[in-house]
Formats: sequence, C-alpha cells, structure tokens
Amino acid sequence: MPSAPRFVAVDWGTSRLRAALVEDGRVVGRSDSDEGIGRLRVGEHEAAFARVCGAWLAAEPSLPVALVGMVGSREGWFPAPYASCPAGAAEIAAGALAVDLPHGATGFVVPGLRFDEDGRVDVMRGEETHLLGSAVVDGLVCLPGTHCKWALMTGGRIARFASFMTGEMHALLREHSMIGRPATEPGDPAGFARGLAIGMAAAPGGLLNLLFEARAATVAGAMSPACLGPYLSGLLTGQEITGAFRLFGRPTTVTVVADEPRAALYRDALGSEGIGVTVLGQEPTLLAGIAAILAAR
Amino acid sequence: MPSAPRFVAVDWGTSRLRAALVEDGRVVGRSDSDEGIGRLRVGEHEAAFARVCGAWLAAEPSLPVALVGMVGSREGWFPAPYASCPAGAAEIAAGALAVDLPHGATGFVVPGLRFDEDGRVDVMRGEETHLLGSAVVDGLVCLPGTHCKWALMTGGRIARFASFMTGEMHALLREHSMIGRPATEPGDPAGFARGLAIGMAAAPGGLLNLLFEARAATVAGAMSPACLGPYLSGLLTGQEITGAFRLFGRPTTVTVVADEPRAALYRDALGSEGIGVTVLGQEPTLLAGIAAILAAR
Repeated sequence: MPSAPRFVAVDWGTSRLRAALVEDGRVVGRSDSDEGIGRLRVGEHEAAFARVCGAWLAAEPSLPVALVGMVGSREGWFPAPYASCPAGAAEIAAGALAVDLPHGATGFVVPGLRFDEDGRVDVMRGEETHLLGSAVVDGLVCLPGTHCKWALMTGGRIARFASFMTGEMHALLREHSMIGRPATEPGDPAGFARGLAIGMAAAPGGLLNLLFEARAATVAGAMSPACLGPYLSGLLTGQEITGAFRLFGRPTTVTVVADEPRAALYRDALGSEGIGVTVLGQEPTLLAGIAAILAAR
Repeated sequence: MPSAPRFVAVDWGTSRLRAALVEDGRVVGRSDSDEGIGRLRVGEHEAAFARVCGAWLAAEPSLPVALVGMVGSREGWFPAPYASCPAGAAEIAAGALAVDLPHGATGFVVPGLRFDEDGRVDVMRGEETHLLGSAVVDGLVCLPGTHCKWALMTGGRIARFASFMTGEMHALLREHSMIGRPATEPGDPAGFARGLAIGMAAAPGGLLNLLFEARAATVAGAMSPACLGPYLSGLLTGQEITGAFRLFGRPTTVTVVADEPRAALYRDALGSEGIGVTVLGQEPTLLAGIAAILAAR
C-alpha cells in the first residue's frame, strides 16, 4: 500500500481544530485552535481553517488535505454523507467528499460511518479514521471519549460498532446534576474501582437506579464525597464495558485507542477482567488512517 | 386510627414550599412559595416558613405542624435522621423530630427513610409520607418524579424500595446534552410510545448505548427531531419500569401516586403491559400520610 509522502491531516471536532503536516509518516508541523465546529457559525469555517493551515498551503498548494470529524457533519463546513458498514479503507475512500480550499488547494472530507441493524442506527465521525489506522484486522477496538465507540474489525474492515455516551454522561452528572452535587474535589481515585465493580456486576435495577444509589450512599454516609466523582466514572465505564461485551461477545483481547490518563483507566478495568489490552495513541492512529484512505483513493 | 381534627401540612421540597391547613381531612387553607430548600441558605428558613404559615400559627399557636421532605435533609432547616425499612406509621412517627416554631407553635419533621441491602443503600425524604397515605397494605407503589420511587408495601409497612433518576435524567438530557440537542418543540407525543417500547425491550448494550442511538437516529434521518424529546422520556420510563420489575418481580397491579399529566404516562405504559393501575393524587396521599403519622405518635 503506497503512502502519500506529504499531506495535511485536519482533525476538526466539536471543541477543537487540530492540524498536522505529515511527511513519510512523521509529523513535521503542528497547528491548532479552539475554533471547534461547535463554536463556529455558517461562513466562519474558511477563515478558521486558513488561520491554522493557510501558511502551509500558501507555500505548497499541491499538498493533499484530509478533513476528519465533525467538519463533515450537518453543522460543519462541508456536510458529507455516511458510508455504511462493513467498510474498509476502500469504502471510506470511495465516500470521501472532494472540496476546494484556500490558496487553490484541494482536499477531501472523510465520510462518517453508519451501522444499521434491526431498524436501529448508530453513527460515527472521525473514529472511522482511527479504526482504519489501528491496523487491527480481526478483533475488538475501543475508542474511549465523550461518545465512546466499540467496533468489531473483520478482515481489516469495520464490520459493526456501538456508541456509548459515557464521557458526556459523566460530565452531565458532575456539572449539572443533583446526583453529582455532593461530590468534592480532589476526587479519591479509589472511588473508580468501587464504581467499576458495581458497574460490571449484575444490576437488576439498571443504570437509573445505580446512579441514584451513588447519591444515596453519599448522603447516607456510606461513601465519602471525595469518592463520588471517580465512583460515577467507574460506574459508567463498567456499564459501557458490560454493554460492549453483551453486544460483541466477551473478548480475550481489546485494542484501546486513547492517550493517558484515560488509557490507563481502560487498561486497568479490562485487565482486572483478565482481558489483554493493547493501547494505541490517538495521533498515530489518525495519521495512519488518513494514509490508508489516501492510498485507497 | 383517630385522626387529628386540625393540622398544618408542610411539603417543603427542593424547589417549592407548599402548606395546607387541614380540618377533618379537608383542606381549608393553602399557602405556598418558591422558597424551596435548594434556594435558601442557613438562617433563611424561619422567615420563609413564617411568610407561608405565620398567619395560621399566630391565630392558633396550638396547631400541630408536620414538616415533610427536604426540610429534614442536611441542607434543610432541621436535619432529621432516617428511619429504616421495614417501616410503617409507628416506626416513622417514632423517628419524628420535634421542633419549636414561630409564635410558640410546635411541630415535627417526618424522618426520611433508608433501605439497606448487600452493602447498598437507598434513601427517600417525603415519599415515605405519601406511601403511608396510599393505604396500600400489600403491593407495589410507584411515585414518579425527579427521582422516582418504587416501593413494596407489606402488611401496611414500607418493606423495601428503589429510586430511579428518571425525571432528572430527562431534564439533563433535554437541557444540557448533545444527545438531546437535536430535539425540537413542540414534541411529537408519538415519540413516547416508540421510546417506551425500546426501553422495555431487551437492551444488551444498556442505557448509555440506547441514549446515543437516539441521537444517531435523529442525525441519520431515522427519527424526526420533534420525536426525540418524548422518545427520550419514553426510553427512560421504560428502563425504569423494567428495572423495577426486575427488582420487585412483575406485578399484576401497581398503585401510582401522581397527578396528571404524568399519571397518564404511567397508566398507559403499565396498561400496555397488561398491568392494572390505580392512580392516587399527590395531595390526598400526603395528607392521609401525615394523619396516619399523627395518629401513631
């Protein structure tokens, strides 16, 4: 598989715009801003892009530019359709949207990916690129985050996946809820393991019951307020892992795409279940994924 | 069971203070304010109470006053301990906290209730009074709300209960989350039944997965934005009912303590499962519960 010697990788999500100039697989320049898709209105994207990538393209207008993430959503700069599972680099590349960029440069938006089953649907935007870059041929890949993704790779293609609002739920509980209000900072890290054990165990009452019980334990004096924040994180992570195992089957190994300190939480949580864990960084998988898509175009 | 001929019932929760002057089981006076416990600081409670109940007590200082709800929490006016399950009117009355009130009046704070099992704990404050007032001797009682309670009554006592953060979760999702952001108003009521069916069905991925899928269906065009808000409400209600059935066993009848329009949602949801529903109003059960506690003192 030939790789493009030089390209610009743009990871444009809800809260940040991150760009890298890549040469032979190495990052030779970086530029970013807080002008995420969630903070921009119609008409503001081109200038935000130019502030971050303009100098590279002015000097070298022929550089290929790959745009990944929410930049391709309906609220983004270039709404791009979803490809459908199963999808490998060829299917993702075939769904890419060619776009004109400042300085006469040209680029493409990586399509999102959707998975349909029994009338239900799931979607991703950005994670498909990391998944291709993980180079997992057959196996389960976990991408923790605001909306965590678990994906089953088969024959080097994304066969199916499921999303979990783990990260966003934790933020909601900590920042806006009565459930998380008794929590104090700094959190006691021992709370994570305690919550994880409850979240991984059989929970007949379900998550809405477990969440209230976390508050109840605190106000009844059965849990310290310092434990509560990490406890909620462990509880949600345990529920996510349990849900993923039920959907995909319990694996012997999982590849986790995450940076520290989040990677360590999943390494520990899965390790405590006797599951082998391989951790890959977010930037390497992004860049490898773009290289794979470029090679397949 | 003799009942006190005249008393003042004070339902003092997080967001409101509601008082009623009761005579022979009938409400002969009402007074309320938005000075809920969540809006008051230390030292502000007595004046708030006097604004709502002062005129009654000035005219008749010997009136018994029952204080119910978050007024007895750690953040309340008179922190009161929890009674423990199983608890009937006698156990609740024995745990009541006698307090001095303006105009030389005396009152009591109804204690909260806690349920312990296998190292886990649940709590309520206020609902214990409604449960006693429901007059259910043996059976399952559901109290919908911000933090819904399901309780098993045995021999006229509250044997065990479980809480679900259904109402608060819906508010979090609608007001603060990316999951609920695509929702438009007015909501399409058909969304509730659709969400309820998914929430009641087997969900191997769990609630964190179901919640993300609601957003995914909307952004992928498989659900109208007008459906999303009622869909989330139905989904959460279905998960709560499913959880309660797993904890307490599937009942043939349920008593629901709620006012309209919330009562109708539970009547329909449980009715569609072939379960008989008796609906009781919130004020009658509160007043009957206080009367039962007064009679047991």
